[in-house]
Amino acid sequence: MMNFNVDVCFTPAQAEHRTISSNTVVVVVDILRATTSMVSALEHGARSVIPVLSIEKAMELKKIGFPVAAERDGVMLSFAKFGNSAFAFQKGEVKNKKLVFTTTNGTLAIETACRQSQKVVIGAFTNISALAQWVAKQEIDVLILCAGWKNTFCLEDTLFAGAFIEKLLELKAYEIASDSAHAALDLWNVAKADVLQYIEKAAHRQRLRMLGVDDVLEFSFQQDSTAVVPIMRDGELVDVNQEP
Amino acid sequence: MMNFNVDVCFTPAQAEHRTISSNTVVVVVDILRATTSMVSALEHGARSVIPVLSIEKAMELKKIGFPVAAERDGVMLSFAKFGNSAFAFQKGEVKNKKLVFTTTNGTLAIETACRQSQKVVIGAFTNISALAQWVAKQEIDVLILCAGWKNTFCLEDTLFAGAFIEKLLELKAYEIASDSAHAALDLWNVAKADVLQYIEKAAHRQRLRMLGVDDVLEFSFQQDSTAVVPIMRDGELVDVNQEP
Repeated sequence: MMNFNVDVCFTPAQAEHRTISSNTVVVVVDILRATTSMVSALEHGARSVIPVLSIEKAMELKKIGFPVAAERDGVMLSFAKFGNSAFAFQKGEVKNKKLVFTTTNGTLAIETACRQSQKVVIGAFTNISALAQWVAKQEIDVLILCAGWKNTFCLEDTLFAGAFIEKLLELKAYEIASDSAHAALDLWNVAKADVLQYIEKAAHRQRLRMLGVDDVLEFSFQQDSTAVVPIMRDGELVDVNQEP
Repeated sequence: MMNFNVDVCFTPAQAEHRTISSNTVVVVVDILRATTSMVSALEHGARSVIPVLSIEKAMELKKIGFPVAAERDGVMLSFAKFGNSAFAFQKGEVKNKKLVFTTTNGTLAIETACRQSQKVVIGAFTNISALAQWVAKQEIDVLILCAGWKNTFCLEDTLFAGAFIEKLLELKAYEIASDSAHAALDLWNVAKADVLQYIEKAAHRQRLRMLGVDDVLEFSFQQDSTAVVPIMRDGELVDVNQEP
């Protein structure tokens, strides 16, 4: 029996450089903070999350009644109801709503993934085990696509990639398909004993501290607070567990 | 006193995405095998190494009398006198010659570096300490540019980047400037107790084995067999120790 592959791209640009087989599930991750927040919105009752690339598109959708979460460079945009913090969605305000979402890196990564694959899901530490179980059940190759920071390698997404590979290997004998996947797993093994300590040196961790929006740090690296598995269906992320 | 920065790009494409200050020394590395071989050619008496991007250019220069080393996808090109093995230059055949060099990844990385900086040097494990000493004396920022494999992250160049950062930190209090530089250093710390064992999982290590050209492995990861420091001067790499 052939094993399935698990691979990692450190940035959306890296994913553009390669051909992804249509029979691959792509796991998009932007730990600080887009994908952690999207998972949180679905967990707290949002009917769906609609990722959009441009601020203009988000403003347009706001005008016709959608609640909007919008962030650039770590800062919430003033026209929006929500920023990029996972905590923003815990007060019931998104319940049964379709939430429009635009961020610096995360929505670009999702768009890149959707151009390359029919099967796009959203990863965070908060849903890592549920997601790994769902992914392993698909019996196809896996690509973890890190959002990075403006197409640059970043540690927090890479650590998620390593942790996710570790989870997958517990479930099935995947082949580690590239040097970047090996590196992600090795870095996770360096970091996992104390992830919050390790992540202190990450550039985006320092950026969030300077902006005063680093209250989500601990929450963002805590595993398995939810079983939500966001999957892309016709341009909207929905929880696979809520599907008929 | 301000510390100088040390940074890492995992691929030439990554270096294209950013602005490099003109006051930065760029260390280009392609451990398997281009930069290891270039260092070896200068060590064994080549007057200079002339990196060229295209096969056509290399053929042209061969016609007017230059000895040529040429490789694509790990394989020596038949028109050339040499391939990409460091051992090829140990028999005195390049002594006092200007050696033309074209390879899959290394020469592209050198070309990228030269478009961005006036100060480009060539790194390998074989010259790592001599190079680190020379670089630290420059008292400017440092960027380690990994050639990678066709603009993809590769482990062997990343390990060199980590080892080189370790050397620099022994000489001076550099600031580690990015997540990729932190990752390179952490991966080196994972690998350094037994680099040859670690590199077994690297894709290019396996590629070289399949091609039957992995005899250079041990040599390529052994540190400090030479004090040669190749630096770019008017399109030619020369040993900085031989300069007037």
